[in-house]
Amino acid sequence: MPYKAIKEIGEFGLIGKISEIAEPTLKATPDLLYGIGDDCAVYKVSDTLFQVATTDILVDQIHFDLLTTPIKHLGNKAISVNVSDICAMNALPRYALISLAIPPAFTVEMIEELYRGMQHAALQYGMAIAGGDTSSSRSGLIISVALVGDVPPERVTLRKGAKPGDLVCVSGALGGAAAGLRLLMREKEIMLEHIENNEPYNRNVMADLQEYPEAIQRQLLPLARLDTVRFLDINGIIPSSMIDISDGLSPDLRHICSQSGTGALIHENRIPIHAETRTIADEMQQDALTWALTGGEDYELLFTVSKNFSGLIDDSRDISIIGEITEPEAGIRITDIYGMTIDLTSISGFDHFQT
Amino acid sequence: MPYKAIKEIGEFGLIGKISEIAEPTLKATPDLLYGIGDDCAVYKVSDTLFQVATTDILVDQIHFDLLTTPIKHLGNKAISVNVSDICAMNALPRYALISLAIPPAFTVEMIEELYRGMQHAALQYGMAIAGGDTSSSRSGLIISVALVGDVPPERVTLRKGAKPGDLVCVSGALGGAAAGLRLLMREKEIMLEHIENNEPYNRNVMADLQEYPEAIQRQLLPLARLDTVRFLDINGIIPSSMIDISDGLSPDLRHICSQSGTGALIHENRIPIHAETRTIADEMQQDALTWALTGGEDYELLFTVSKNFSGLIDDSRDISIIGEITEPEAGIRITDIYGMTIDLTSISGFDHFQT
Repeated sequence: MPYKAIKEIGEFGLIGKISEIAEPTLKATPDLLYGIGDDCAVYKVSDTLFQVATTDILVDQIHFDLLTTPIKHLGNKAISVNVSDICAMNALPRYALISLAIPPAFTVEMIEELYRGMQHAALQYGMAIAGGDTSSSRSGLIISVALVGDVPPERVTLRKGAKPGDLVCVSGALGGAAAGLRLLMREKEIMLEHIENNEPYNRNVMADLQEYPEAIQRQLLPLARLDTVRFLDINGIIPSSMIDISDGLSPDLRHICSQSGTGALIHENRIPIHAETRTIADEMQQDALTWALTGGEDYELLFTVSKNFSGLIDDSRDISIIGEITEPEAGIRITDIYGMTIDLTSISGFDHFQT
Repeated sequence: MPYKAIKEIGEFGLIGKISEIAEPTLKATPDLLYGIGDDCAVYKVSDTLFQVATTDILVDQIHFDLLTTPIKHLGNKAISVNVSDICAMNALPRYALISLAIPPAFTVEMIEELYRGMQHAALQYGMAIAGGDTSSSRSGLIISVALVGDVPPERVTLRKGAKPGDLVCVSGALGGAAAGLRLLMREKEIMLEHIENNEPYNRNVMADLQEYPEAIQRQLLPLARLDTVRFLDINGIIPSSMIDISDGLSPDLRHICSQSGTGALIHENRIPIHAETRTIADEMQQDALTWALTGGEDYELLFTVSKNFSGLIDDSRDISIIGEITEPEAGIRITDIYGMTIDLTSISGFDHFQT
């Protein structure tokens, strides 16, 4: 029998194959408006209400490292990354189900701490922890969250829908989560080195991570941009397309363009990057722009709006207009202040199965 | 800091602690009618529709063994166990989200096969595979399914609601899944022994599992009792309480009684056990009744109805009336044909954290 390694086709190739097998099952439920292929599934529950549903699985040593992640923060993050997917549909989070596979060495107190982080996030986002399942695990901790959200039919926003001429917008700043991850990884290496050499790992050799509060916070306690969804609602702005930046600006913009059948032109100097992120990149002799384009995990919202909304967007100090949607023939490009443009798709994001 | 091993408080102790921490989050969503503590969470989406939501996580070497489980069957079972929770609320399954953590050795074809099993189940139950998430895993396969279902407000059935005098009913037959599991485990041992001794493991030494089609099917391809939910609907029967038998008749009846604040008296000779299950138990010198009471994984429905419905229940050849709900003081007891009664709660089910 022929067989193919998953890394040969990558995460998105695999999703394509899964999507084909799932397709015949969609006929049974005519109220399902959108299945696999966006941040959430979308279904109609009444004439005045759609619901959206998403799930994200977090695996020890793949998505997190308990050596550098306080377990309460991990609980908080597990909720936030799912809320971010709900926000990307222009929806509000409602009900979460939590599945856990728990390693034998975990204590009751560790699970309570994990749930306290989830509770903190749920209270912040105004949603309920409504159920779940627990199992033991033969290896590391696994957290799978499923989350249902509400959205009025006229406000639901997909990845597809961007039109040439639309403005490309991004909330907050990018690259901070990648900067934070590098700081934590560097600190972990120093710690392990000291332990291996039987040298004390104490305050004298520890980095003071409080010097970089923004980047560490971005990595350990990302905040889903429910405030941006509320800003759009209050100002009567309905984006033509939206996605959350989990993989990086470059791959996530590519999703919008490929599903909308468009190109895009982004201006390098308009990409919002926090000053602290630039400082960390300089210190590590790395490139902050690359972190912003491909670092991922920023959980900001990337969306497109009609030019009519440009005044309203400008009023928000927290949303940057970084470029414009173009005809598909123009491709997806980034330009610098000298007018040099390159193909943005040549810069790719993180794929679980390619590492 | 004091700490407690999870096995000290068990799965239900842990769920109690999780429930307390989740409690404050419920205030934000007044449409959530029921959170942690039943087979599904229940929330109102309109005046004429409630939805229910559940999640189940399946972990390699805890819930399944790929040496004895065809991967397509595993996909089917991952859907069925969740549909069974939806049925236990008297609801119909609608939208599934699938999270996978995939080991490095898995091929594309294996994932396709897993999804083909899920597709088969979804088509059978009339529901959609609407989304999901995939990740790599550093150890075994993890499957987490979340499932949303629909139920008219007047039909939703909880674990609580049983009243003294109500009849205790069970669909189908019990103990078959436990019998099937023992057959597969015995076969696996024979296989591993032959491999270890460098002896051929071939048709001459293999058991013919086709001799026991019912038990093997029960273990590998359990069927959620959507047909029972439909039978109840067509006949205008609304159970006063319901649960699916995932842990075994004894612990699952205990859930109904403790949440309803009642006792129960069950007649041993009325517990439905398939003839094949009895044959396997005899062959293995085990007790078929114990399998029925504590074996688990039968995914039959255990429910209570008012005595007014006894005629209608009798019309169904597939539902057995096995006893009656009593006042709480009477406890939860089982009686044999000679009138000897014992405390049913002394016979307990499976706990992931106690093994």
